[in-house]
Amino acid sequence: MKKVAVILAGCGVYDGAEINEAVLTLLHIAKAGASYECFAPDIEQMHTINHLTGEEMTPNRNVLVEAARIARGEIKALTELDVNEFDALIVPGGFGAAKNLSDFAVKGADAQVQSDVLTTAKAFVDANKAAGYICIAPAMLPLIYGKGVKTTIGNDADTAAAIEQLGGAHQNCAVNDVVVDQQHKVVTTPAYMLAQSILDADAGIEKLVNKVLELA
Amino acid sequence: MKKVAVILAGCGVYDGAEINEAVLTLLHIAKAGASYECFAPDIEQMHTINHLTGEEMTPNRNVLVEAARIARGEIKALTELDVNEFDALIVPGGFGAAKNLSDFAVKGADAQVQSDVLTTAKAFVDANKAAGYICIAPAMLPLIYGKGVKTTIGNDADTAAAIEQLGGAHQNCAVNDVVVDQQHKVVTTPAYMLAQSILDADAGIEKLVNKVLELA
Repeated sequence: MKKVAVILAGCGVYDGAEINEAVLTLLHIAKAGASYECFAPDIEQMHTINHLTGEEMTPNRNVLVEAARIARGEIKALTELDVNEFDALIVPGGFGAAKNLSDFAVKGADAQVQSDVLTTAKAFVDANKAAGYICIAPAMLPLIYGKGVKTTIGNDADTAAAIEQLGGAHQNCAVNDVVVDQQHKVVTTPAYMLAQSILDADAGIEKLVNKVLELA
Repeated sequence: MKKVAVILAGCGVYDGAEINEAVLTLLHIAKAGASYECFAPDIEQMHTINHLTGEEMTPNRNVLVEAARIARGEIKALTELDVNEFDALIVPGGFGAAKNLSDFAVKGADAQVQSDVLTTAKAFVDANKAAGYICIAPAMLPLIYGKGVKTTIGNDADTAAAIEQLGGAHQNCAVNDVVVDQQHKVVTTPAYMLAQSILDADAGIEKLVNKVLELA
């Protein structure tokens, strides 16, 4: 049975992992006959957003503690992830991928990836293991794989331009499709960068999970 | 297109709505060609649990504000729900159903349903509209439908006994199946009261959603 590590960026679209994307990722891993284990960096969120009003709220929250809500408590700090135990890595989106796993939401073309995330993601690259990045998470790929990596966040021109400045080869992509960089074994899909409904997100994520497992 | 009201009890299995159950409910409503709108009571949670450690944490959180995370901000206070706009009601589980939507987790056979939830749920009963209750949420049914309502929370003997004391007619049920009270048009499924994996929860919830829509 293939085993997938899933990195969650918190719990909630505006400051953490997009919840539908995270659950659909876990669902499709299980449906494909693979297993998963969830991880998150043990760090403070960039900020905490009241998802009813859109306003910032206090106190701030911890990424790992909040991500544990999606994982029903079955989650470990990212520093405990041993790449040798896994066949592939998948990173769902949500603003948390651009606020907690990286600072792309604030820095754009000057972004950096959070150190635990970078170490882990690069370990999968070095081991030549497959990976999938969903929604805005693919913005991190040039910083993980280097210049020329093929990636998509859908079709937002400004975001695509920032990814190109980081060195990525952005390709526009429909919400129910994926972009595959065969050389780097990395798959991306727009999900809620474009999704108008949970069915849109489901279609792209199902395709991404199956392609990642095929490459794994 | 049939339209379903979904009541969320917060965001996270130990103090709110079980996240997988909530997302799978929304997914299967959409897959069946129906639409949904999410609601939650605008009240403080019974308490807030750190899902990593299992310990209580402060400050406490608001059910509606946290439920908004699952709904991507697209949610209204339960008092704004107009039963005339909907064909059916579905209530996912998680401890929040027994801690926030009712006090069944603390009071057992002496439980009461939160007043906004009771008013809304009874409005669906009075309008003879279909409903579905998932996981521990069915424990509320005797207080909503009255004595003799057929219901399941799986096969936990103590919980079933408390439901019987409340007046419910509990039936044991497999995780991938549902109990249907045709007379009251109410469907129940155990989900994470029994589920060993997201696939278990998915199977029962898919069946519940389709049966509710058939009765709607």
